[in-house]
Amino acid sequence: MGETMIGLVKDHRGPGAVLKEVPVPTCGEDEVLVQIKATSICGTDLHIYNWDAWADQTVITPNVFGHEFAGIVVEIGKRVTGVKIGDQVSAEGHMVCGNCKACRTGNSHVCPNTKSFGITAPGCFAEFAVVKASNIIHNDPKLPYEIACLQDPLGNAVQTVLSGDIVGKSVAIIGVGPIGLLAIKVAKACGAGVIYAVDINASRLQMALEMGADHIINALETRTSEALLALTDGEGVEVVLEMSGNPQAIADGFKAAAKAGRISLLGIPTREVSLDVTNQIIFKGLRVEGITGRKMYESWYQMKGLLNQKRLDLASVITHRFRLDQYEEAFQLMEQGQCGKIVFLH
Amino acid sequence: MGETMIGLVKDHRGPGAVLKEVPVPTCGEDEVLVQIKATSICGTDLHIYNWDAWADQTVITPNVFGHEFAGIVVEIGKRVTGVKIGDQVSAEGHMVCGNCKACRTGNSHVCPNTKSFGITAPGCFAEFAVVKASNIIHNDPKLPYEIACLQDPLGNAVQTVLSGDIVGKSVAIIGVGPIGLLAIKVAKACGAGVIYAVDINASRLQMALEMGADHIINALETRTSEALLALTDGEGVEVVLEMSGNPQAIADGFKAAAKAGRISLLGIPTREVSLDVTNQIIFKGLRVEGITGRKMYESWYQMKGLLNQKRLDLASVITHRFRLDQYEEAFQLMEQGQCGKIVFLH
Amino acid sequence: MGETMIGLVKDHRGPGAVLKEVPVPTCGEDEVLVQIKATSICGTDLHIYNWDAWADQTVITPNVFGHEFAGIVVEIGKRVTGVKIGDQVSAEGHMVCGNCKACRTGNSHVCPNTKSFGITAPGCFAEFAVVKASNIIHNDPKLPYEIACLQDPLGNAVQTVLSGDIVGKSVAIIGVGPIGLLAIKVAKACGAGVIYAVDINASRLQMALEMGADHIINALETRTSEALLALTDGEGVEVVLEMSGNPQAIADGFKAAAKAGRISLLGIPTREVSLDVTNQIIFKGLRVEGITGRKMYESWYQMKGLLNQKRLDLASVITHRFRLDQYEEAFQLMEQGQCGKIVFLH
Amino acid sequence: MGETMIGLVKDHRGPGAVLKEVPVPTCGEDEVLVQIKATSICGTDLHIYNWDAWADQTVITPNVFGHEFAGIVVEIGKRVTGVKIGDQVSAEGHMVCGNCKACRTGNSHVCPNTKSFGITAPGCFAEFAVVKASNIIHNDPKLPYEIACLQDPLGNAVQTVLSGDIVGKSVAIIGVGPIGLLAIKVAKACGAGVIYAVDINASRLQMALEMGADHIINALETRTSEALLALTDGEGVEVVLEMSGNPQAIADGFKAAAKAGRISLLGIPTREVSLDVTNQIIFKGLRVEGITGRKMYESWYQMKGLLNQKRLDLASVITHRFRLDQYEEAFQLMEQGQCGKIVFLH
Repeated sequence: MGETMIGLVKDHRGPGAVLKEVPVPTCGEDEVLVQIKATSICGTDLHIYNWDAWADQTVITPNVFGHEFAGIVVEIGKRVTGVKIGDQVSAEGHMVCGNCKACRTGNSHVCPNTKSFGITAPGCFAEFAVVKASNIIHNDPKLPYEIACLQDPLGNAVQTVLSGDIVGKSVAIIGVGPIGLLAIKVAKACGAGVIYAVDINASRLQMALEMGADHIINALETRTSEALLALTDGEGVEVVLEMSGNPQAIADGFKAAAKAGRISLLGIPTREVSLDVTNQIIFKGLRVEGITGRKMYESWYQMKGLLNQKRLDLASVITHRFRLDQYEEAFQLMEQGQCGKIVFLH
Repeated sequence: MGETMIGLVKDHRGPGAVLKEVPVPTCGEDEVLVQIKATSICGTDLHIYNWDAWADQTVITPNVFGHEFAGIVVEIGKRVTGVKIGDQVSAEGHMVCGNCKACRTGNSHVCPNTKSFGITAPGCFAEFAVVKASNIIHNDPKLPYEIACLQDPLGNAVQTVLSGDIVGKSVAIIGVGPIGLLAIKVAKACGAGVIYAVDINASRLQMALEMGADHIINALETRTSEALLALTDGEGVEVVLEMSGNPQAIADGFKAAAKAGRISLLGIPTREVSLDVTNQIIFKGLRVEGITGRKMYESWYQMKGLLNQKRLDLASVITHRFRLDQYEEAFQLMEQGQCGKIVFLH
Repeated sequence: MGETMIGLVKDHRGPGAVLKEVPVPTCGEDEVLVQIKATSICGTDLHIYNWDAWADQTVITPNVFGHEFAGIVVEIGKRVTGVKIGDQVSAEGHMVCGNCKACRTGNSHVCPNTKSFGITAPGCFAEFAVVKASNIIHNDPKLPYEIACLQDPLGNAVQTVLSGDIVGKSVAIIGVGPIGLLAIKVAKACGAGVIYAVDINASRLQMALEMGADHIINALETRTSEALLALTDGEGVEVVLEMSGNPQAIADGFKAAAKAGRISLLGIPTREVSLDVTNQIIFKGLRVEGITGRKMYESWYQMKGLLNQKRLDLASVITHRFRLDQYEEAFQLMEQGQCGKIVFLH
Repeated sequence: MGETMIGLVKDHRGPGAVLKEVPVPTCGEDEVLVQIKATSICGTDLHIYNWDAWADQTVITPNVFGHEFAGIVVEIGKRVTGVKIGDQVSAEGHMVCGNCKACRTGNSHVCPNTKSFGITAPGCFAEFAVVKASNIIHNDPKLPYEIACLQDPLGNAVQTVLSGDIVGKSVAIIGVGPIGLLAIKVAKACGAGVIYAVDINASRLQMALEMGADHIINALETRTSEALLALTDGEGVEVVLEMSGNPQAIADGFKAAAKAGRISLLGIPTREVSLDVTNQIIFKGLRVEGITGRKMYESWYQMKGLLNQKRLDLASVITHRFRLDQYEEAFQLMEQGQCGKIVFLH
């Protein structure tokens, strides 16, 4: 590779980003250099692009952002074992310390010393990226790059769906943006019973049906909790997967949950949520799971089995493909929400 | 037994109760009649005695109330097997349908068709009580009646403590009324690491120390979450057991919980609680467990093993013993809160 | 209904059975009478028909045998609630006591006081059968009777597959008789990774491929453990489901299991099995699950969700349909093993 | 420290060992050098000392052996973070790769690339030892060295006891050598119900009583399974912890296990074991857990909580203390088995 490359850079602490020539990052002794073949846009990338309060508090600049990718290894650090040049790879984006109690007890996903690829460290919207060797995931060469790059958000969906029993259970997925759509696919592939999809975006609800949801509920037209209770003869939904982050939707999700049920929370509200703890949690004997990231690395192995054996077909989740220099159009589309996953083919 | 007995009767829908002669209840074909030897006062009994909004919505009148007891079987219904006259017994107070999905999948504690002994059905503050045979628990004859009658609240403590891993973990018990005090005993008997007790009542905090708490925190003097974070080097407490029902304490419990930790909620707030779902549940990867009743009947078998082998010595939890005709004094004491468990010896 | 009916009766303690007129059984006060619409033949029925040592020790005579059925309720006992005339139903065949420790702690499937429908109590190869109301399962009216009657063996498959994690994992199903074939369907519907089917019967291996197995291994042609280790790069299979009961196959299953894997044992060997406990269980950190029956009633609810939402299509598992008077032909076919499930349409 | 040290060296491939001057090991960049303060003798060390078939297949020579230790850090490698000179430490002896599927999914204890401290790598029967920084455990400075060095075998006991539910359950510990004795302490500290200890060594059974066993069974005098079934009214023991490795004892353990119970296997038999899989595993719905090592690092955190809060007092488990130059006497004593843990104070 040459000494410079084209990358999409967040170069100032405000809205927007710029595509420009930057140095190819240097591969450290515990790292590998990956030639990027495909990337996809996460909701987090939109927050970075638009520069909201979270981004201002969290993101480093200047920085190549983007964290969902698939590529091919072109260089390895001198202490690296288990990865070799030519391997087709993706990566877990949480770079963790490995020494803390969380890391030592299977909870790396909440390591307090985490650096995040593409957020607090250089990312993948570029020709090349450096990745910690410990975070590398080997992809099946038969898996298309554009599918392989979806494993990061797919892992969120997998971990949310599988944070409790799912087989045969009624499931409501509240918020069917890209991760919600993936969650429908995952729930169905893992034996869920009836699947309800909830959103306020009619086109995404239509996509939800196409992904396999059994019923859709437009929360603009009907109260979610009432609709779900009516559809379940008043018993409520056994598994609620909250992926909207909307405080009202969260409260509604608790109301719609069945006794002895589960609600797994992935969507991030920007303000406090007022909950009827007595009736919606305690008297129901409800379990609530806060979901952050993916299980390192159980979620990745679950994905590998599902994808390699074609239990899960993600092709229909990708609605748009762009070159990286079309980034403005891509982010505008993402902003409008009339899309599934948007992929950059590098 | 004769045809009438003395019972403590909630005979009107307002504060107070009256000790009076009532008919000995009739033993149905699936029921047993128990001569009551000891009972204890639950917080719920105080709500009934004082007649708050919950009581007004829930409790039947006229009714002998009380639901924590130990006694001896004096009559059995004609279809009863497995219980015989002379058996020393207590009982699970949730009388469930056995047919619903909850009952058929190990979740009887949230059966929607539950009748509650001493609340929506006749109870045990009397010489005799009728109990569903299916709910009978056989006590070891070596277990004193006054200890055996504590198994109902002990079961709440057991289920709250054991609703997740406990061995070696740091534990905060918020609210050390009688169930909180029992929870300290249980946590210690089950291998918990450091145990923090939190309350606003100095005498109960003193009792908490005597029960085995390693540290006490008076929430009137210091902010609970700050104290717990300081005591754990900022990492938070791995297991929070919320037994106060105070909305502020609940919110504080979430703040004090460690990443990848657990909070189990038993105390019942009377209004909604505003929670920072993003930082206190999602980013922490927290598990929240709503606890209602006991596991039917795992909690009872856990208690049996702990009590019969003396892993748990509850004698010190009983601070006062009365005759049933001293009920006014007993309820007054309960109201003031300067007590552990109060027992009636019948 | 009349006073007599035609039933397939095991009327003597030796091989064979006879179709004859018998009284319609009397419906007790906790029971329901079901008009049988479809039944299927279990391997156990073949043991009863052929009268092996197990049958001689276990089975009552004279007795209408058969325990896998679907039908319609035509009479209910006077204490029955929750079931009504006209309901389409199947039933769990283990009639348990409800009072013992096993029953009270979610382990009814090993209740020591179990009576077995069609084995130690009258069964369903007849026009009518009496069933304990507590054991009734309500079927979706849209579910064909011939599919609904398969839930009993399907429940064995469900419980075996789901007795540990399955999503994305490599799975070997050893022994693909009818339950093994169902297990392939279930594993695939629940998100298993690669599925290996092992048998010595070439036609059943062909059926296994049709059910969705990814690879088949004929244990007559190759050593199972060697084949499975070779197919998994020496790592072994993460989940082994043993459904053959053959001692050599069981030992091979342990050898083929991966470190930190699971082996679930359903097939019943008729002699002791010699195992290399050190290398195949301890050093592997293996989990072994003995599977008996189904979870009462989690397995049934899992089936309901899978069947009602068409996550599982069982039509192809049924290879033969007979009238009850063709029973000799049916049992002969079952004996020869060139079949999937054989169904009687009543 | 100087350039040489005194160490107990296995210098030839046969019985015995020699105390001699050897170089102080060099601390690599990811390692720390520990001054050893206390060590204890494992059964594995006796196998190495006596040089049996396992040792001949596994152990490297020449090598300082020993792997149970506590000490103080005197040097750290240049890439080490989180450990500093002066820290009081012990270490997990399994040095694993961190890259394989087992390591990445919480199953490092079965990493196929493991090197074992004191077995396939230099160990701790010496003045100094080099330890991988990732394996270091920080000890509470208040914990005596002679107790801290017991954490390695204690971890085996902890993982065996806690490989399933334990609270209130009946427990049989078969084989009460040092790890079995520790298991009694752990089971009791974690809320086990009645504890049965089984052995053929009368003095160890006496120690078992002192550690807190409720009943002892001498397998020379009575058949273990019969004794345990008699003591449990024929129901069997809910949790069997097999720590003898004797094939007859293992088979007996399975016989003694209750329905829906658990047997955890730690003791390593040197030949195959013949099991009645049908009656002792399948019809019982038994769970079998193969235990190897400790959970990395959950077991260590469980120990930390138990030890630091004095839930577990191990002082009485240590029956003998020696200087390292008394090694011949120590190993002779270990051979004879009239001891609990034997400690070297360095």
